Amino acid sequence: MPNLYSHVSPPVETFSANGRTYRKPRRPTLAICADGWDPAYIEHAFAHGLMPRLAAARVRTQARAQVPTFTNPNNVTIVTGVSAADNGVAGNHYRQAGRELQVTDPSFLTAETIHAAAQAAGVGVLCVTAKDKLRALLAYGGVPAFSAEKAHEQTLADGRPVIEAAGLGANPGIYDWRLSVYTVDLAVALAGVLDARLVYASLTDFVQHSAAPGEQLSDDFYRTIDRSIGDALDAGFVVGLVADHGMNAKPDVRFLDDELSAGGVRSHHTLCPITDPYVAHHAALGSLAWVHLDDPSELDRARGALAALPGVEAVLDRSAAAQAFELPAERIGDLVVLGDKHTVLGKSAAAHDLSQLHGTLRSHGGLHERRVPLIISHRLSDDALAGRELRNRDLHDLLLNHLA
Amino acid sequence: MPNLYSHVSPPVETFSANGRTYRKPRRPTLAICADGWDPAYIEHAFAHGLMPRLAAARVRTQARAQVPTFTNPNNVTIVTGVSAADNGVAGNHYRQAGRELQVTDPSFLTAETIHAAAQAAGVGVLCVTAKDKLRALLAYGGVPAFSAEKAHEQTLADGRPVIEAAGLGANPGIYDWRLSVYTVDLAVALAGVLDARLVYASLTDFVQHSAAPGEQLSDDFYRTIDRSIGDALDAGFVVGLVADHGMNAKPDVRFLDDELSAGGVRSHHTLCPITDPYVAHHAALGSLAWVHLDDPSELDRARGALAALPGVEAVLDRSAAAQAFELPAERIGDLVVLGDKHTVLGKSAAAHDLSQLHGTLRSHGGLHERRVPLIISHRLSDDALAGRELRNRDLHDLLLNHLA
Repeated sequence: MPNLYSHVSPPVETFSANGRTYRKPRRPTLAICADGWDPAYIEHAFAHGLMPRLAAARVRTQARAQVPTFTNPNNVTIVTGVSAADNGVAGNHYRQAGRELQVTDPSFLTAETIHAAAQAAGVGVLCVTAKDKLRALLAYGGVPAFSAEKAHEQTLADGRPVIEAAGLGANPGIYDWRLSVYTVDLAVALAGVLDARLVYASLTDFVQHSAAPGEQLSDDFYRTIDRSIGDALDAGFVVGLVADHGMNAKPDVRFLDDELSAGGVRSHHTLCPITDPYVAHHAALGSLAWVHLDDPSELDRARGALAALPGVEAVLDRSAAAQAFELPAERIGDLVVLGDKHTVLGKSAAAHDLSQLHGTLRSHGGLHERRVPLIISHRLSDDALAGRELRNRDLHDLLLNHLA
Repeated sequence: MPNLYSHVSPPVETFSANGRTYRKPRRPTLAICADGWDPAYIEHAFAHGLMPRLAAARVRTQARAQVPTFTNPNNVTIVTGVSAADNGVAGNHYRQAGRELQVTDPSFLTAETIHAAAQAAGVGVLCVTAKDKLRALLAYGGVPAFSAEKAHEQTLADGRPVIEAAGLGANPGIYDWRLSVYTVDLAVALAGVLDARLVYASLTDFVQHSAAPGEQLSDDFYRTIDRSIGDALDAGFVVGLVADHGMNAKPDVRFLDDELSAGGVRSHHTLCPITDPYVAHHAALGSLAWVHLDDPSELDRARGALAALPGVEAVLDRSAAAQAFELPAERIGDLVVLGDKHTVLGKSAAAHDLSQLHGTLRSHGGLHERRVPLIISHRLSDDALAGRELRNRDLHDLLLNHLA
């Protein structure tokens, strides 16, 4: 006899973060922020059979990243599920009251993280980053967070060394192409140790800054990390992956402070929100810059001088940029300048050390790095994607609310 | 004894349009495009008790309009449910191969309308517009469409004169403040005659161009149209309302072709996509303009000259604008220029007739007219709005898929 009450669903256990409701994970779930994985890498890897496990994923689509297409704002939009206007993180750093502030402290967040909210609802959570700079942001709300970069210095709550508890070998260095691979391995291993059901792994884009699709380095990287993703699948994880931004070759450079001075603007401060403690692979040059002016009466002159530069494809006032790109107006420049697909923007020729760059600069930050891959290992319910404009910040919604 | 099979839902009857799925309306549904209803009008009307029926609506929130914030692109985004990038309508007109084309023909649409798809699925549909210029676009796919402006010349399929069939008095003229009120009355009356279940009424913004919130004209208008909306509710309609764009006083004007010539750009064509056959109330001046150049080598010079103008808050290249605002790149200018909250953009002083304007120009088209009211008479299901960034193009999704 059929169970006539089988239609009575158990109460769905949910939690909320920033106005969005999420179901608690029914299966162990690994969300990966695949730093700098331009869709071109995925296309190449799939076409050449480099990633058999990821290629077998049921959902292989694209989504839109947060502008500026830099790492911090996009990690934060992914882990909060809301735009930079709501979470407060518009760049890797910003200028306020004449000082430049690096956005590495959770006090800059104006939204909670999905992981903190999940943990408060009783879900076991874990964040593992490649670069240590992001760890503090992701640890917001008491989320257990570790970095591959500093794993050798870190311990679990019970005092055990992280690497020993994970049963892994020594962690690679920050400019080793295996650091992102190690990050996935560390996340999966620690999830088992800590019994975490919702895991976030954030990689690094050193490989993507260094090598185009089809180069030996990137091919090796994608072939290897696919095996680690396969290990996660074999361990029973649902895996969802989205990039923080794409990546393009950018041979052209414009130094905005130099140009503004030449254009007769007296007092200006160009800020490159890509800047972080690790700049050897991109020399702090990206395709979006904030420009701050000491004297508001120079705004029109500055806007005109910047917009006249070859390679600049858009200049927007603060409020226009905030409106156009969902940014917190008080944490961006008086002017927001966008380089085109092949152009990066810097402060001045003297301020950037290009000597450590090898070959053509590859970077991101503008509109041409806004399309990113979104891949989910398992099937979603019918219509989960119907008519929806996906953002990378929708990753957790898809993973937690829309699995078939 | 309880009905143990009550959990077996009847098959939901749905239809699809442009990748979004909609349920057929369970109740008669009236969707209103409230032309130029800046949120400030609603706030004033509610605060002063001018609109008791609309103020009693269960959902009173805001949404984002399509940029450029003009009438045609926003009507089309509302009736297709997708962005201008997908539906092809980015302005009231555009320039192609050296000619300026008015977008009034359905052949410009690159997406189907929700109403055409609903009708194909057997739903009785109806569109009624204030201005006749929109009627042909909305009639796409054989949707019965009438205009208040030309109602005296129109007949139903059975040959009856529209006004007679509707049982209404004579239709007001195009610059009569009662035309939008008449549009709602005509929509409700014809829905009864034609047994339409999904009705779209698109108003005109003559009142909003002419009068700020709190002026006698706009107060009279809102007080009167609230009664017509009340009649629709009393007739059993679920009513959803969203604006195509806001409205602001714009005392400042920049004539871009004049400025470009002064800046040494040789061959340029400024196009004001607000332009339509009815310009007396705004002189074809809005806060967004396309600029086309005959010689691509003049792009940097033109961009710089335009960006240097006071009142211009952003200048974007074609591809940057298409990416930033979800526009069809082939149907916008080489440059997209945005005026600030108080500034409209024109071609040249000679090309615009400002003599018919009374008082301060009020207009729209830019980023400061992107927030629009979204009001739904009936309750939505829990979480229907949770964490969702609403667009005006979501109106039909909310009305058809999310009523409680």
